[in-house]
Amino acid sequence: MTTSATTEPIVTPPGLAGVIVAQTEIGDVRGAEGFFHYRQHDATGLARERTFEDVWHLMLHGELPEGERRAAWAAEVAEALVIPAQLRERLIAVMRASGGADPLVTLRTALSAYGALTDDRPLWDSDEQTKQRAALRTAAVVPWLVTAAHALANGREPAAPRPELGYVGSYLAMLTGSTPSARHVAALSRYLVLTIDHGFNNSTFTARTVASTGTDLTSCLVAGVGALAGPLHGGAPSRALDALDEIGSVERAEGWARAQLAAGQRVMGFGHAIYRGVDPRSELLKETAIELGGPTAELAVAAESEVVKVLDEAKPDRPLRANVEYYAGVVMDACGVPREMFTPTFACSRVVGWTAHVLEQSHDRKIIRPGSRYVGPLPDAVSARPV
Amino acid sequence: MTTSATTEPIVTPPGLAGVIVAQTEIGDVRGAEGFFHYRQHDATGLARERTFEDVWHLMLHGELPEGERRAAWAAEVAEALVIPAQLRERLIAVMRASGGADPLVTLRTALSAYGALTDDRPLWDSDEQTKQRAALRTAAVVPWLVTAAHALANGREPAAPRPELGYVGSYLAMLTGSTPSARHVAALSRYLVLTIDHGFNNSTFTARTVASTGTDLTSCLVAGVGALAGPLHGGAPSRALDALDEIGSVERAEGWARAQLAAGQRVMGFGHAIYRGVDPRSELLKETAIELGGPTAELAVAAESEVVKVLDEAKPDRPLRANVEYYAGVVMDACGVPREMFTPTFACSRVVGWTAHVLEQSHDRKIIRPGSRYVGPLPDAVSARPV
Repeated sequence: MTTSATTEPIVTPPGLAGVIVAQTEIGDVRGAEGFFHYRQHDATGLARERTFEDVWHLMLHGELPEGERRAAWAAEVAEALVIPAQLRERLIAVMRASGGADPLVTLRTALSAYGALTDDRPLWDSDEQTKQRAALRTAAVVPWLVTAAHALANGREPAAPRPELGYVGSYLAMLTGSTPSARHVAALSRYLVLTIDHGFNNSTFTARTVASTGTDLTSCLVAGVGALAGPLHGGAPSRALDALDEIGSVERAEGWARAQLAAGQRVMGFGHAIYRGVDPRSELLKETAIELGGPTAELAVAAESEVVKVLDEAKPDRPLRANVEYYAGVVMDACGVPREMFTPTFACSRVVGWTAHVLEQSHDRKIIRPGSRYVGPLPDAVSARPV
Repeated sequence: MTTSATTEPIVTPPGLAGVIVAQTEIGDVRGAEGFFHYRQHDATGLARERTFEDVWHLMLHGELPEGERRAAWAAEVAEALVIPAQLRERLIAVMRASGGADPLVTLRTALSAYGALTDDRPLWDSDEQTKQRAALRTAAVVPWLVTAAHALANGREPAAPRPELGYVGSYLAMLTGSTPSARHVAALSRYLVLTIDHGFNNSTFTARTVASTGTDLTSCLVAGVGALAGPLHGGAPSRALDALDEIGSVERAEGWARAQLAAGQRVMGFGHAIYRGVDPRSELLKETAIELGGPTAELAVAAESEVVKVLDEAKPDRPLRANVEYYAGVVMDACGVPREMFTPTFACSRVVGWTAHVLEQSHDRKIIRPGSRYVGPLPDAVSARPV
């Protein structure tokens, strides 16, 4: 769009890569340094030391909760995990009627229905406290929605939340049908904390763009879910695990990597648009996978060395390292998360980040509305006009 | 996000105003000239001379259909308007269960369910023809979805499409419950053609951003619906008509406009971010409103002159003229569209624009992922590091 003849338009690189579109106090990814943080805290440190609930509070309220506040917040989260019976029945009816085998697609529909059923209002009609409460409640319903969608798709009844197990424990219990071990809860908690936020990734930017119209919170989050479903975003995190299956044993890793490169394929689970070297999420998840142990973890570690050797040889200018996808799959698998639930599990944590971003965006009453350059044939009326 | 220490990041103005984020062959808005076009055709000319179906073909296939192609396409659209009985029942069940009084919110849920029930797949898994067919069918279901949502919210049974009346006639028939007059169909057709596309407006940009992940068409459109619901976008087109009610009679228009300005209010229905002078959509809709006649149209025309006088006096540097919202409300009202259906009616036309943009975006396999500037307190680990 030509906005005006007087100002020179700013032309951006494809995909808006590296273009600073907004200011934020929520977090940052320092790609060159292999470091990312939520507010003023190193994200990997948080994943090691803090509960998912603690970090949720940090994202939404700007600080880690301590002492009484910490206990009160954990109780608030636990309460939010429980969905009133009547609402649950309506949501199950929506999920049943909308069919869908893919839990992420069902989440998109059911989350939209959740907004309607809870009478979600335009963001600007609410004060900060009301928005924060809606942010907590809406993000808290997602673990139940995705596990219920998964259960229904597999002919099972949805499980009830187990708030006494905490956010992560309740999720694993609903998903697997049994009380999870403490080490599985701790491992999955690391994954979930590490994936709450990561700069202006596509779904987060989408949620903020939608929020800039002043619409309701649900509309922003539903848009985020749709973006997360894309294969270039969150839509294929089981690819790396599928690749490990294909590799099968460490002796075959080198040959597999060479074959991928020869076929012009991207090597799944390696490289990241922002991190030029090590992905800090991958580092901590690798450590976590090793602690959990098992044949898949062992194969993953051994195969990683072989693949990195091949990649370094083929692309010496650009060090490609295992990204978050690689060890995330190993960790989720070890914790009992089935592959088709990898992206829905990712949605559970990322929705917390989206809510923080939507609330931040709602303070700025300026609609996001960029321009474009028309490159098709000109209409007669325009050709005749002076531009 | 800091992407790299070596390249200087591009910093953009708030809301990405005037920032060229992509190339497009779909259309352009030439704000300074008061002109906009779809492909190589003046949009107001199309609204005067062509059917909605014709322009739909132009958006999706790049050219106006003529002769046999034109008839075949009209038949294709008519066929797409009819929803198979089983699918209709499922969608009604979803709509009933999701409750919602606002047809646009119900559309968000039901459109998402439609994607699930028709097994909509990631865009990149389909060839061009399959994508175009999905684009036609998905946009064609929207008029039925919004009128069904409206009927259900008012305790009535959803009406069946009337494909023999054409796209616009079928919509009006479903909405009002009776066969519309030819002049109402012609008038509403103008409104619908004029609002199919308009540059990289927020919902269109949202749909394209989501599409850049490679996700399915439905996810992109559902995101667009959520954006359109925002009060800064499509969420309040009845405001101008509400203002006319408040004004009541032409003698009161001047005083009303002065009171709005004195109270620091935006004068609803006047001014546009892109058009500095006349909004070409408003011009044609004004003409249409006058042709339709009636007391509201007369009041609107007379009140416009009074309000413009006050605005010119108060803001001599920036001519504020009636925008699309002003006469759109008058035209829709005259055609029997109730106010709560103004934005859902807008969604019917704009979804056609979204589908064209999503398909165009799907040719570019680059994810949209901008950066941001972190302005919160720095973590210790970062403060200690050289940036």
